[in-house]
Amino acid sequence: MKADFILRGTITSPRGFLAGATYASLKVKGGLDVGILYSEVPCVAAGLFTNNRIKAAPVVWCQEHIADSRGQAIVVNSGCANACTGAHGLEDAAAMANLAAKRLEITPEDVLVASTGVIGERLPIELIADGIEKVSLSPESGHELAQAIITTDTCTKEAAVAVEGSKFAIGGIAKGSGMIHPNLGTLLCFLATDAAVDARFLEKALREAVDLSFNMVTIDGDTSPNDTVLILANGMAGNEIINEGTREAEAFRQALTEVCTYLARRIAGDGEGATKLIEVTVEGALTVADARAAARTIAGSPLLKAAVHGCDPNWGRIIAALGRSGAEIDASRIDLFLNNMCLMAEGSPRSFDRDGAKAVMAQDEVPIRVCLNVGDGIATAWGCDLTAEYVAINSEYTT
Amino acid sequence: MKADFILRGTITSPRGFLAGATYASLKVKGGLDVGILYSEVPCVAAGLFTNNRIKAAPVVWCQEHIADSRGQAIVVNSGCANACTGAHGLEDAAAMANLAAKRLEITPEDVLVASTGVIGERLPIELIADGIEKVSLSPESGHELAQAIITTDTCTKEAAVAVEGSKFAIGGIAKGSGMIHPNLGTLLCFLATDAAVDARFLEKALREAVDLSFNMVTIDGDTSPNDTVLILANGMAGNEIINEGTREAEAFRQALTEVCTYLARRIAGDGEGATKLIEVTVEGALTVADARAAARTIAGSPLLKAAVHGCDPNWGRIIAALGRSGAEIDASRIDLFLNNMCLMAEGSPRSFDRDGAKAVMAQDEVPIRVCLNVGDGIATAWGCDLTAEYVAINSEYTT
Repeated sequence: MKADFILRGTITSPRGFLAGATYASLKVKGGLDVGILYSEVPCVAAGLFTNNRIKAAPVVWCQEHIADSRGQAIVVNSGCANACTGAHGLEDAAAMANLAAKRLEITPEDVLVASTGVIGERLPIELIADGIEKVSLSPESGHELAQAIITTDTCTKEAAVAVEGSKFAIGGIAKGSGMIHPNLGTLLCFLATDAAVDARFLEKALREAVDLSFNMVTIDGDTSPNDTVLILANGMAGNEIINEGTREAEAFRQALTEVCTYLARRIAGDGEGATKLIEVTVEGALTVADARAAARTIAGSPLLKAAVHGCDPNWGRIIAALGRSGAEIDASRIDLFLNNMCLMAEGSPRSFDRDGAKAVMAQDEVPIRVCLNVGDGIATAWGCDLTAEYVAINSEYTT
Repeated sequence: MKADFILRGTITSPRGFLAGATYASLKVKGGLDVGILYSEVPCVAAGLFTNNRIKAAPVVWCQEHIADSRGQAIVVNSGCANACTGAHGLEDAAAMANLAAKRLEITPEDVLVASTGVIGERLPIELIADGIEKVSLSPESGHELAQAIITTDTCTKEAAVAVEGSKFAIGGIAKGSGMIHPNLGTLLCFLATDAAVDARFLEKALREAVDLSFNMVTIDGDTSPNDTVLILANGMAGNEIINEGTREAEAFRQALTEVCTYLARRIAGDGEGATKLIEVTVEGALTVADARAAARTIAGSPLLKAAVHGCDPNWGRIIAALGRSGAEIDASRIDLFLNNMCLMAEGSPRSFDRDGAKAVMAQDEVPIRVCLNVGDGIATAWGCDLTAEYVAINSEYTT
């Protein structure tokens, strides 16, 4: 954490945002499953969406309706992804936006839509309609909205930062758990800020923050048709519009990256069945792109993930994953560290304290650092261990 | 199986090949771990090796010494991969070749070397030396060699074909199990033929056969620094040298592909912890490359693999994996079949017999077919289900 930031709160921490959620019988196991985020005034909006060529219906809706950089509300459900649902799915996503617009007395064009859950089943629109009707909105209900978007997550992901010396705050909520892989895992993330922000700068800052955070998280290599990151900026802080190149822009960018990184790490640590977070930093790569590819490939290696689960310092798997990442390497220059313990230096094994290594791997966070020593590129990626519980969860998800 | 081929036997089925194996105390759990394949006369040789930028020492040795398209013997060990072992590793691989050459009274340049097992530990060369000394060679010992190369495999992979109407036979053995992913999983495959084959054609035919077989197998997305496919052709069948464009060349190519495909399917079905084989065929792709990418991505999806394990017809995961494969698709044209049961047509869900689908998924082989209907590209990939046993095996491999 940078000293400038105070991390606390949730998506309704910035001024002028209300949220609410209800149980609409979509999730078989119960729990909140329909929710709304609403700004008292129209917002400048930006979004990033899945790279999967199969795009869920709500993603198609959002991409069309965020083109004008405007939005005022987000309506979301869990339990059904409304993905692979053909033309009916598009009608259902539009119906969901219309229902929320009517309830909020705004235009459907300003309503963004998101869904997460089982793929290939039609949205039960009557249940959604009942849910939207029942939701009651308040500035204290960000946590309920965070609950409404989770599926196999074991906890909510929420954060807010207020930048000291600046007038504005940024809050966010996210869900992850399975089908998590760059770019954008099955990830829903909604961000809200009371800052007044220029639309083009907002999108650029969002893209940068997501590249450093959510796009560096990998749970299982699968990407979802529903991945969505949305930000609404309502300007109620009364600041001068933040634009590229100003001091405030830098503060905004840092604060946004801070919130996204916090949420991304929480997603990685709460991957399906996970018992620990793996943090992989690759330094000295020829390029940043190389460092990113190497860090993500290592963090996503099933063999490494299983070894971390078993506290087994089988570091050859790290190097094998590095080797297939596509990053430029000189095998004779690679140094490898577990925490600060050197396992390999200049490409050759070093004898190390095996029990000490196991102890590091038994911690909640396992830090791996690879120095390629061929350039200045650096990147960090996050993943989690692979457990029998992951298999159990995903053998029995729809049934 | 094509009617022309008779599948039986092992790597010593073709004339003039001898094999042998022994226990040299490399594998902690016991079992044969050092072996030799030897041809009575020098052979035309070809090889394909890992794409991983980290190449194990024996791979470096082979790449150097197969450049002259000549070889007469292969010496192999399991239990230690001699990978990530720096300059010492290269010395050890050379020592292994020299020991075998001395034992066989041939030049070290004609000895190819392979290793599989734990990465990052030095080869115990004294044990290897004792093992090489102890091995006794016979034309009946192909099966023992097949045993000596396996690690976490639960069974040997062996095959041989004799082409009716042709004079020659092709035999092969392989090992797989973990770290299996295109291109070339932790895969060792040794092939032998008594055909006389032109060196350039041999390499080309090997590349084609491997592309259609081993390169379409995925177990866990990890590739190994040790992947090696070698073929020795000793010409003892007395046939006219087979060269590109002849009828015999076509027969050879087909026979080689047949052996490799049989071995590849056996590797997929015997993936670490696997209980069943997943066969994914993608048809109607814009290009063969698209079909290959889509088939491999689907077969490799952890979420699909877990669903197959649980006999859960959660077909949305197939489409989600297809969508991230990079293959050109038109979402409204996709048809999806489990065996011959249609789950999706023209991009929309079809109602299907869920119990029937579960029954198909409970079989030893689960056939999935995706028709993209945008071109003529077709490809088949093989994988296996993801089980708690995979996690258990890989949490405890070195310890």
